[in-house]
Amino acid sequence: MSLRLTILGCHSATPRVNAFPTSQYLEINDRHFIIDCGEGTQRQMRKYKVGYSKINHIFISHLHGDHFYGLIGLLSTFGILNREKELHVFGPKGIKEATEMLLNISQSHAKYELIFHELSSTKSELIFDDEKVSVHTIPLRHRVYTNGFLFKEKEKPKKLHMQNIGNYPEIDKADYLNIKAGRDIVLPSGEVISNEELTIASEKPKSFAYCSDTCFLPSIIPIIKNADLLYHEATFLSDKEDLAKKTLHSTASQAATIAKEANVKQLILGHYSGRYKNTELFQEEAKTIFSETLLAEPGKIIEVN
Amino acid sequence: MSLRLTILGCHSATPRVNAFPTSQYLEINDRHFIIDCGEGTQRQMRKYKVGYSKINHIFISHLHGDHFYGLIGLLSTFGILNREKELHVFGPKGIKEATEMLLNISQSHAKYELIFHELSSTKSELIFDDEKVSVHTIPLRHRVYTNGFLFKEKEKPKKLHMQNIGNYPEIDKADYLNIKAGRDIVLPSGEVISNEELTIASEKPKSFAYCSDTCFLPSIIPIIKNADLLYHEATFLSDKEDLAKKTLHSTASQAATIAKEANVKQLILGHYSGRYKNTELFQEEAKTIFSETLLAEPGKIIEVN
Repeated sequence: MSLRLTILGCHSATPRVNAFPTSQYLEINDRHFIIDCGEGTQRQMRKYKVGYSKINHIFISHLHGDHFYGLIGLLSTFGILNREKELHVFGPKGIKEATEMLLNISQSHAKYELIFHELSSTKSELIFDDEKVSVHTIPLRHRVYTNGFLFKEKEKPKKLHMQNIGNYPEIDKADYLNIKAGRDIVLPSGEVISNEELTIASEKPKSFAYCSDTCFLPSIIPIIKNADLLYHEATFLSDKEDLAKKTLHSTASQAATIAKEANVKQLILGHYSGRYKNTELFQEEAKTIFSETLLAEPGKIIEVN
Repeated sequence: MSLRLTILGCHSATPRVNAFPTSQYLEINDRHFIIDCGEGTQRQMRKYKVGYSKINHIFISHLHGDHFYGLIGLLSTFGILNREKELHVFGPKGIKEATEMLLNISQSHAKYELIFHELSSTKSELIFDDEKVSVHTIPLRHRVYTNGFLFKEKEKPKKLHMQNIGNYPEIDKADYLNIKAGRDIVLPSGEVISNEELTIASEKPKSFAYCSDTCFLPSIIPIIKNADLLYHEATFLSDKEDLAKKTLHSTASQAATIAKEANVKQLILGHYSGRYKNTELFQEEAKTIFSETLLAEPGKIIEVN
């Protein structure tokens, strides 16, 4: 398993007894991320057994309450639990001042270092990059400054094809790093052995695009092109397309259109308006345009293998 | 029913799946109050069917997260639900700036007026007073500035004893208001008819004292004397009295001692530390000092008749 998404909450606006605002837990290539943090996120993390200590990076799309008001409680709880590791929070400009003010007023002086990465660009930018994963912003259009996030695994090192390598006693263990790095090998005889012969092709890196909240925005298509999994908000059905336009949200059809045009492999919908009692209608509507459509619900896990 | 308390949450520190931080809903003489507002309060209000529109006053004891971090979400939700009535929030100095900053950063511009009553006195003061109810602060001692609250019904108007009044044809309807106001009546003959004869004694006004969070603090006893119901925090059992002292919390025994010395009618305990799996131990410990001890649990309703 290289990519696994757990839905912690997926409803819009106000929390209800069994409807939690947006939050997701992403495991990708041994990295563990929280994406958005509506009120109650820490409780949902406990419910679905997300280890608090695994989380080192939190990504906040925008500062509306249903994506943000659970952050302060989570950070405070990390402090109460004596966290010592540093924690990185990515989110719109202003998030640092607001969060620090709340922590100060509550005198929640934690031992761990809280590092904010404030975002303000309207262009896609690389905001996280290590040897395993990269994260780019996906500029969205909503009533406040908003980014989606594109999480991509790095190319994995090639594995050695030991049986084929055994056919060339001239190849030394010292060459293995070069082979893993994708290089051909030149034998003392001058013969060139192609890298393909000496390695087992590694799994294709996986990617996940998170897009919430946003109006219908085709400009994101080049950024999310060919993603393995796309989460796209679908606050309304097409019967409320006017309201979607007015509130800068999307309909299920619009999300499906983006998924289709971007040639993603799977689409998962969420951020349903409370006016719809039957969320299956979202899936039905989207499937007429893009068949590989799933519905977010609390506790749902989507694995990309 | 003149006083009814609904426990929305009653655990300390960090929310867990079935443990919600402090919040209570108090109905007293047709007034409807929320007391403290830990994360998830709005969800608990929905769960226990507390009508959002009934709430016009919220009292926050102190700004630790487990009593405060649910306020912003609730206020924001009131806005989303198009509340128009003004809302009063009582709490420590600083609550206004923090709350307004969060509402601004989320661009949660509601139509209703939000009126803050910031508290900073270390003496008990009258902070709410209308024809039905009064509320006084109860200065507490905790790691940050903290108040408890004493909610008291006003004396109810006396009811006319129509049968006895019928014995005196000289008494006119115009006298009824005077009788209800407690005055004796002088007949044209000069005879004085005592008010007791002409009225039915009204129910004694009820009172509720809310004390959380605090160390053991006998100075509150004169303020809460003879209350019908006392909620007092009991974060620890006596086995952790040292820890209670260090963290400025109370033990179950200490809460019971306050209840006994203040001669209250009933004590309800809460704010249990997560280290105790069996909350019944709190009741057992307290009952050795004060027998009329109840345990708070989410959804529990205590009526004082």
